[in-house]
Amino acid sequence: MGESKKQVGVLGLGRMGAALAGAFLGAGHDVVVWNRSPLKAGPLLDRGARLAATPAEAASADVVVSCLSTYDTQQPVLEAASLSGRTLVNLTSGTPEQARVAAKWAASAGVDYVDGVIMAVPQGIGTPSARILYSGSEAAFGAQRAVLEVLGEPMFLGADAGLAALYDLALLGMMWSAMGGYLHALALVGSEGVTPEQFTPMALEWHSAVGGFLSGIGAQVASGDYETDVSALDINAAGLAMLVETSRAQGIGTTIPAALRELFDRAVAAGHGTHAIASVIEEIR
Amino acid sequence: MGESKKQVGVLGLGRMGAALAGAFLGAGHDVVVWNRSPLKAGPLLDRGARLAATPAEAASADVVVSCLSTYDTQQPVLEAASLSGRTLVNLTSGTPEQARVAAKWAASAGVDYVDGVIMAVPQGIGTPSARILYSGSEAAFGAQRAVLEVLGEPMFLGADAGLAALYDLALLGMMWSAMGGYLHALALVGSEGVTPEQFTPMALEWHSAVGGFLSGIGAQVASGDYETDVSALDINAAGLAMLVETSRAQGIGTTIPAALRELFDRAVAAGHGTHAIASVIEEIR
Repeated sequence: MGESKKQVGVLGLGRMGAALAGAFLGAGHDVVVWNRSPLKAGPLLDRGARLAATPAEAASADVVVSCLSTYDTQQPVLEAASLSGRTLVNLTSGTPEQARVAAKWAASAGVDYVDGVIMAVPQGIGTPSARILYSGSEAAFGAQRAVLEVLGEPMFLGADAGLAALYDLALLGMMWSAMGGYLHALALVGSEGVTPEQFTPMALEWHSAVGGFLSGIGAQVASGDYETDVSALDINAAGLAMLVETSRAQGIGTTIPAALRELFDRAVAAGHGTHAIASVIEEIR
Repeated sequence: MGESKKQVGVLGLGRMGAALAGAFLGAGHDVVVWNRSPLKAGPLLDRGARLAATPAEAASADVVVSCLSTYDTQQPVLEAASLSGRTLVNLTSGTPEQARVAAKWAASAGVDYVDGVIMAVPQGIGTPSARILYSGSEAAFGAQRAVLEVLGEPMFLGADAGLAALYDLALLGMMWSAMGGYLHALALVGSEGVTPEQFTPMALEWHSAVGGFLSGIGAQVASGDYETDVSALDINAAGLAMLVETSRAQGIGTTIPAALRELFDRAVAAGHGTHAIASVIEEIR
């Protein structure tokens, strides 16, 4: 890395916390770890980490990374850690509001606060595919950027500490929608005996093609110009009605397409029938 | 193309029907078109198409491609067309059940029946990116394959005439889900002033990464083995609860995440909490 060795504290050694500590160790940093159950630290200690008996011991580091299961679990740990004058990088998952509350607490406690979210599974930590989003104190982020880069590609979003969690939820929502849509599709073709092996190559090709449509939708949302000569909302709403009807006829659930249909129908009822699908955002916001 | 010139009839000159007729003309075929309102044929006649005064005139061709707005509009046209002994390629959008009913009617009328669905917008017809799915008579499809290839890449799915429409709805459902998820994400980050221009590059990168997750989900559905050491359903269900809560807190709608949450929660309640997201399919089928 060409970086100087730093002291890094890691609070929380669940799957993700352990992966973070492992990546810091791999980059040659001096890593001190704390976990409620110290047994989980074993493999990290074998690799050279030091075990802190209390959160405060781990908090003597240059930068403290927190990755607990929830904000409720985290807050007493942070308060016990005596972080005044340190930089806290909070990677515990939560809502934008929880991040903002934590940022306020940090300000009152004299802690430089950076909030982060990890767009990767623990196995991806330390690889270039791991994207990590940060918001909060830009100065603190900048000072610790080199340390944080060992975890994955960092991106700083802005001073609102809630921004990283907001992006996280927005992106995860895209993932859950896409996964739900794919699982519904598998169930639908599966009702006629089509296997995932048969369907998936085409589904992946199609998923990729759909990615190509999204930037066009984004441009329409940006401009507010929903004119289309390609695919009007009313045709898509009628297609969703067919999907609901066919799902029912094939004996599978309708939760996902019924919700989309309701949303699309509301947009048609609001006068967007001849507009592009992008106009559905008017019924969401 | 190296193909012999054929007579191709096209019934219906909406945006898609006109694009189909244009592609056949472009490939040098002898194209005869019929539309309820003959005015729409103008540009095609300029390019060498012949206008049929009745559906029956268009049906004197080697192969007749039908692309009407709905099956209800189509059926009287097909009956008027006297298609006995011809091959009908039905590209009108509909449900699998409508396709099966049309196939039965075709069998009773002595018509070789191929059902097809177009996974492309009219502007994509005739380009390699246009994927067209077919099902029904494999012999009739094989005999007309070279003609159909001028429209886009053909794929034959099986003898059940409803299969193409089933795949179509399954794939479109994936598209609507992904688009809905993206629009929700845009609305969510937009509630804090983040623009589509700012968010979309990351969203597209993420959409692509999500595509990489789908084949793993498909493999788990195929095996029925939902064990995971990456991301358990209960954590994702908790994330969906956060997304619903945050959407509400940011003042935007919750239709899509609330439906996904309901589905994921049902799967957790059914005992899949520690399983992979793939297990949600058990609550769909």
